[in-house]
Amino acid sequence: MTVASEFEVANQQYVAGFDKADLPMPPGRKVFVLTCMDARLDPAKFLGLEEGHAHVYRNAGGRAAEALRSLIISQQALGTREVVVIHHTDCGMLLIKEEEFRDAVKTNTGEDVSHVSFLPIKDLQESVKNDVQFLRKNAAILDVPISGYIFDVKTGKINKVEV
Amino acid sequence: MTVASEFEVANQQYVAGFDKADLPMPPGRKVFVLTCMDARLDPAKFLGLEEGHAHVYRNAGGRAAEALRSLIISQQALGTREVVVIHHTDCGMLLIKEEEFRDAVKTNTGEDVSHVSFLPIKDLQESVKNDVQFLRKNAAILDVPISGYIFDVKTGKINKVEV
Repeated sequence: MTVASEFEVANQQYVAGFDKADLPMPPGRKVFVLTCMDARLDPAKFLGLEEGHAHVYRNAGGRAAEALRSLIISQQALGTREVVVIHHTDCGMLLIKEEEFRDAVKTNTGEDVSHVSFLPIKDLQESVKNDVQFLRKNAAILDVPISGYIFDVKTGKINKVEV
Repeated sequence: MTVASEFEVANQQYVAGFDKADLPMPPGRKVFVLTCMDARLDPAKFLGLEEGHAHVYRNAGGRAAEALRSLIISQQALGTREVVVIHHTDCGMLLIKEEEFRDAVKTNTGEDVSHVSFLPIKDLQESVKNDVQFLRKNAAILDVPISGYIFDVKTGKINKVEV
């Protein structure tokens, strides 16, 4: 039994109660949320988002460098005018050391991933500041409000990082 | 009033009812969900996910090429052993023509983004097949079940794509 087949079953309930057939494509609240793929994070729940509200972009760590393509599309094609960057406590990216991790991947898969930047995090305040500043300085990104937060997995709270 | 400040207010409710302080970092259901950032998609809701269940990676289109870094981390550092790729109907990536879009970004921001691959989609069946096959063939990705779906924004249903 795959998890995918469990998803198909769970999805039937969502379909049965579905009442969002007429939402437009552009996010209603014109915001792009950049956060981590971590399993403990449910951004819709902890930010009060409903379907149709926001672009929610997620990757390992919630790193901005990798989000550029999507953010440009979000702003230029779909009209978002604010960015919220949210990293979180106990992030797996705090545990990864780039060189050791590449070695482990090589050992486990035989594949050389030395061309991949894994974007590990040393300090959460710094990673949020760096990512907010990276986006503010990027000439392809519009001059819109960009703020940064750290989600606390022990409390569910988003704590603002002054940048 | 920024959307970020509205998020801070909404987050207080989540914190007040928070009871997930002790979830472990690795996803409990050992699955990596790859889907689009589209505002109409709430993967936790339409897949029946709770906090702690799954890595949820999202970008514009739900494209696999950009997800490699995160998926390698998910598998090698956090133990996921299944991948579910979900694209969706009425995706913004169906509207984007790479060259035209680059020209528009240049006009609107002054920035040359000819180095960015925007990964547009021509056909959803094809994009799902291509992304599933791309991951299956990638030597740095483990040999685990990888399935593909198209989420229908008019019904909320995930429809399987045979790959």
